[in-house]
Amino acid sequence: MAVYTEVTDDALAAFLEGYDIGRMVAFRGIAEGVENSNYSLRTTEGDFILTLYERRVDPADLPWFLGLMEHLAAKSLPCPLPVRARDGANLNPLAGRIAAITTFLPGVWPRRPTVAHCGPLGAAMARMHLAGEDYAPTRANALGPQGWPPLLARCGDSGDAVRPGLTGEVRAALDATLAAWPGALPRGHIHADLFPDNVFFLDHAISGLIDFYFAATDLYAYDIAVCLNAWCFEPDFSFNITKSRALLRGYQAVRPLSAAETEALPVLCRGAAIRFLLTRLYDWINTPDDALVTRKDPLDYYWRLRFHLQAGSAADYGV
Amino acid sequence: MAVYTEVTDDALAAFLEGYDIGRMVAFRGIAEGVENSNYSLRTTEGDFILTLYERRVDPADLPWFLGLMEHLAAKSLPCPLPVRARDGANLNPLAGRIAAITTFLPGVWPRRPTVAHCGPLGAAMARMHLAGEDYAPTRANALGPQGWPPLLARCGDSGDAVRPGLTGEVRAALDATLAAWPGALPRGHIHADLFPDNVFFLDHAISGLIDFYFAATDLYAYDIAVCLNAWCFEPDFSFNITKSRALLRGYQAVRPLSAAETEALPVLCRGAAIRFLLTRLYDWINTPDDALVTRKDPLDYYWRLRFHLQAGSAADYGV
Repeated sequence: MAVYTEVTDDALAAFLEGYDIGRMVAFRGIAEGVENSNYSLRTTEGDFILTLYERRVDPADLPWFLGLMEHLAAKSLPCPLPVRARDGANLNPLAGRIAAITTFLPGVWPRRPTVAHCGPLGAAMARMHLAGEDYAPTRANALGPQGWPPLLARCGDSGDAVRPGLTGEVRAALDATLAAWPGALPRGHIHADLFPDNVFFLDHAISGLIDFYFAATDLYAYDIAVCLNAWCFEPDFSFNITKSRALLRGYQAVRPLSAAETEALPVLCRGAAIRFLLTRLYDWINTPDDALVTRKDPLDYYWRLRFHLQAGSAADYGV
Repeated sequence: MAVYTEVTDDALAAFLEGYDIGRMVAFRGIAEGVENSNYSLRTTEGDFILTLYERRVDPADLPWFLGLMEHLAAKSLPCPLPVRARDGANLNPLAGRIAAITTFLPGVWPRRPTVAHCGPLGAAMARMHLAGEDYAPTRANALGPQGWPPLLARCGDSGDAVRPGLTGEVRAALDATLAAWPGALPRGHIHADLFPDNVFFLDHAISGLIDFYFAATDLYAYDIAVCLNAWCFEPDFSFNITKSRALLRGYQAVRPLSAAETEALPVLCRGAAIRFLLTRLYDWINTPDDALVTRKDPLDYYWRLRFHLQAGSAADYGV
């Protein structure tokens, strides 16, 4: 469910008058996504996505996100291109929210990722990293390592209700992970949330990378670690090294990893698992029972974390 | 939220092989609707809607619904045309459900219905009634008058928790309404759920009537009564006679009402209000707190019922 804010047809028509993209032809809420309200919008000029930014997104960050998308799209990365209004603005008020129109990208996100998806994913991520190199503004990663201890603190002992002893286990893993965290790896703009539902495929090739609203300036290899968590585990939480190998090969064919980056993979993967475990745990205890969103099980990432904790080296990821 | 059943890209690709509508280009869940799972589907041949029928729909009814839509579309009514697979079937299994592909209709449903919407709505409804006259198969209206007493019984006294005394008030109104129910009015196929979110407008004209999954064979004037309830009350539940007059004029310009139909409007409106009050009440008490659907307030129709109970004649509806 991803329509939190209802847009009236009148408000939309008035909004569109500020743009040079023709008249409204169709307008439907999109069910995917959980952070913002998204609509599929067809005008006499083509197809677009209308996004209304909801409470989780800091309005001050929006120009950075949209600037990054514009920068990447200009370098032919298949990401949504923000459409500018007649006055040049790419962010405008609508229905009490800030809203943006972006181009529509074809393709379908893979509900069941296979090995065949992982190679193209790795290559596209590496191209994204390289294409972002000369986008000068930076954005600190609020959900990066510095953000995890306060997030754990805000969860209190509630993890123990989800699984006895969880809080202590996560705290120990977090302490060890932060102590081993690599500081000097190559940095740049990362997507930080490149899950399958944010990657479109068309005819076995990547046709879209979407949802840049967690993007930040952080370690490139951490972006890979997020993807290893998101794409390379089976439904029973077993790690699929064939997928991991394909993802890493795809990436390195475009941007080879340094020895230090490779070596850091296990700890980066632990960090990524902790990040999603913590945000899911926080949402789990803070989402009202009658909310319209499906709460995601934090334990999905506990089981991933357990794999990463026993992984001895990058060889366990197929490098 | 209207995606209850997740369709994998592989399953969809296999499903589409049975059809002659090209290859998949895009596929997104649609947030609107509450009964079935709907996806917007683009192929190399055009745009379509994929619907997976969920538990509320009796599979035995589906051929009737799709037959009616095909019949109406063939008469140029702007309703979705079911697309037949290569083998001629318009219903096929997908992801453990029965599914259908229909044509995509342009337009936007009016979030805030105005008088300007009501005339075209009435005219389109009348055209629909006339176009359906020679569709021979019939379907009893499970949510028609015969269905209301058992529905009230299944709600028990739970209405009293929503509003003290509600159960008794509704029972009295139901008894009186059924006693006065007109039996001999013109009958045919009615939509029975023609709410604003089932009617698309484009450039001030109706471009789509959708969601025929409550359609049945019943009194034509009852369909009007449903629309008077759905379109002609303001957010504060005051009745807007200007909208009602426009709706009835639009209807009668295409299909004039008999004197008996006109005279029956108040009692038909009471019945329609009771029908939606009861189904909402039933859903209210039977929807788990953690369900993905928004429960609709049954009292919205209590206030409408109160208006209809004091309406003395069709003149109160602007006839």
